[in-house]
Amino acid sequence: MKINGQHYRTIWLAQDGWRVVVIDQTRLPFRFETVTLGSAEQAADAIRNMVVRGAPLIGATAAYGVALAMRADAADSALEAALALLAATRPTAVNLRWALEWMRRALAPLPPPGRVAAAYAEAAAICEEDVALCRAIGEHGLPLIREIAARKPAGQPVNILTHCNAGWIATVDWGTALAPIYLAHDAGLAVHVWVDETRPRNQGAALTAYELGAHGVPHAVIVDNAGGHLMQRGQVDMVLVGTDRTTARGDVANKIGTYLKALAAHDNGVPFYVALPSPTIDWRLADGLADIPIEERAGREVSHVAGLAEDGEIRTVQVAAPGSAVANPAFDVTPARLVTGLITERGVCAASSEGLAGLFPDLAQG
Amino acid sequence: MKINGQHYRTIWLAQDGWRVVVIDQTRLPFRFETVTLGSAEQAADAIRNMVVRGAPLIGATAAYGVALAMRADAADSALEAALALLAATRPTAVNLRWALEWMRRALAPLPPPGRVAAAYAEAAAICEEDVALCRAIGEHGLPLIREIAARKPAGQPVNILTHCNAGWIATVDWGTALAPIYLAHDAGLAVHVWVDETRPRNQGAALTAYELGAHGVPHAVIVDNAGGHLMQRGQVDMVLVGTDRTTARGDVANKIGTYLKALAAHDNGVPFYVALPSPTIDWRLADGLADIPIEERAGREVSHVAGLAEDGEIRTVQVAAPGSAVANPAFDVTPARLVTGLITERGVCAASSEGLAGLFPDLAQG
Repeated sequence: MKINGQHYRTIWLAQDGWRVVVIDQTRLPFRFETVTLGSAEQAADAIRNMVVRGAPLIGATAAYGVALAMRADAADSALEAALALLAATRPTAVNLRWALEWMRRALAPLPPPGRVAAAYAEAAAICEEDVALCRAIGEHGLPLIREIAARKPAGQPVNILTHCNAGWIATVDWGTALAPIYLAHDAGLAVHVWVDETRPRNQGAALTAYELGAHGVPHAVIVDNAGGHLMQRGQVDMVLVGTDRTTARGDVANKIGTYLKALAAHDNGVPFYVALPSPTIDWRLADGLADIPIEERAGREVSHVAGLAEDGEIRTVQVAAPGSAVANPAFDVTPARLVTGLITERGVCAASSEGLAGLFPDLAQG
Repeated sequence: MKINGQHYRTIWLAQDGWRVVVIDQTRLPFRFETVTLGSAEQAADAIRNMVVRGAPLIGATAAYGVALAMRADAADSALEAALALLAATRPTAVNLRWALEWMRRALAPLPPPGRVAAAYAEAAAICEEDVALCRAIGEHGLPLIREIAARKPAGQPVNILTHCNAGWIATVDWGTALAPIYLAHDAGLAVHVWVDETRPRNQGAALTAYELGAHGVPHAVIVDNAGGHLMQRGQVDMVLVGTDRTTARGDVANKIGTYLKALAAHDNGVPFYVALPSPTIDWRLADGLADIPIEERAGREVSHVAGLAEDGEIRTVQVAAPGSAVANPAFDVTPARLVTGLITERGVCAASSEGLAGLFPDLAQG
């Protein structure tokens, strides 16, 4: 996608040809700064501290983290250590494990001297695959928006609510949930996006609003509390979100608060779609509520908020009463019964075992 | 309630015997400061800028605002002007209108020279009535908590989720939704409160957490997104909220986001109770969604967040992407079908015309 007219992906090789550059997402939307990663440890830190986030981009960064590790030491033990280090950074997103498995499968059989070049090639392939998957998700999601647009009175935009950030900045390019929106906008359809702020880390207000604005897509930021009210008033035509892990029967783990929007959509007859590349599907799991581990993050993310202060610096202020305890579950699980459909790179399907197995007979586990 | 061992109400007369002192709720929890109101205009500003908030306290402040106006000019025209000025400050809470009607009824028949003393007496009476109503709500809500406590394994607290602030600081004393919690805690029942942060103004994180902490009630602050997840995991035994306006059939307008928690409670079989003094009931209205006006507040409440900066000052930081539009509806309506029961000063009833008319045959309109 373009920023100030220049095309960017979210991750690329530095000019030295081996280090890895990412956009520092903790500084957006107020600063566009990049961070250069020179080791697997730095890649792990970038994931853990959410310098990079979004399930697909986490996977891509982890893949390059393995490549950086191989460049330092390509021995079997170093490979295993790097895979373990990177796997431990975030527990919920399954793309991370998927990308690390890809790297292990590609590198483990090779003699160590061949691993560096192969690792870089494989990490690049993971990035290219992500771009292709996201683009395909956009193309499969576009007709859903087009159908709604055809039913709206002339001149009225399709109002789409999204939660957190599942845009190009959560992936290598295009995004998952935002890919159909970008394609619709580019195709001349009138779309307007309700952007959930997405506390505690405000990825909606900061990142989704930023990238929609940079691309010129009309949108408005709302607090996470507002979506149900807007649906009651007929001001939401469709909910479109991403996911960090989807089970084989279509239960969807996504950023905390997604479940509440799914309930409101269901209560108001608003279609609720989840966009996902197939690496986000955990074919081993069925019951999302019972089986998907939910990351509990630091309480300071809740008690404190970062933003642009009047002096132009990014500062943190405390919002919770001093001394109060804080709890901070980072994801919740939306049961498949509340999901209208899953938008994948192979098409749209029901959020069910049959739906997913129908699109992915080669991946589904009997 | 007590702060640092000293008993406070939220509104009282200054030492000069005529000006009105309130706690500046825009400075809590980081500063305990009071504001002294010397005119109806200052009272209106305090309501509009949420120096005072909470439906019952808004009503009490407006009543004293009329008294302040009478002291400046007790003519009929001045009375009408003050009533109009104060009525225009906030559109959703109905206690405001109720308190102003009370003042009009008491003052309009009197000759102007008698209005000042009467206005102060009536405002004081409104405050005393609010304290009595809230205390009675607490006593009627306490058995609900006690019943849940009796079913829990020994040593496990009753987990109660609340949204926004319906505590003593939203009323003259005791609170509405928090009154049963304070009584339960004081009675030795183990209670633990999940405190919704309540964006955009963070009344939960700032005010509810503050007053629960000051009273020693165990609690944890969570983002507004987290409640559904906690209910799915069995970590919420009861939801207990206040309301700014309830219709004659039991539809409940309350702080934006309440509806989402009601949906989650319904989906998980968690009882959802609304605590309200009868002045919060708008007997003229039935359909809350169609008929209750919803205040749209300034977008800056969403795009910016105030809190305690590292230098010890209360500062505001921008959290939304610069240039992004913002929408800020302040309330939503929870339909009666999602409400387990209404806790009033006369007892607990179903959220229905029959339920309310049964408790309030003298007030219900046939």
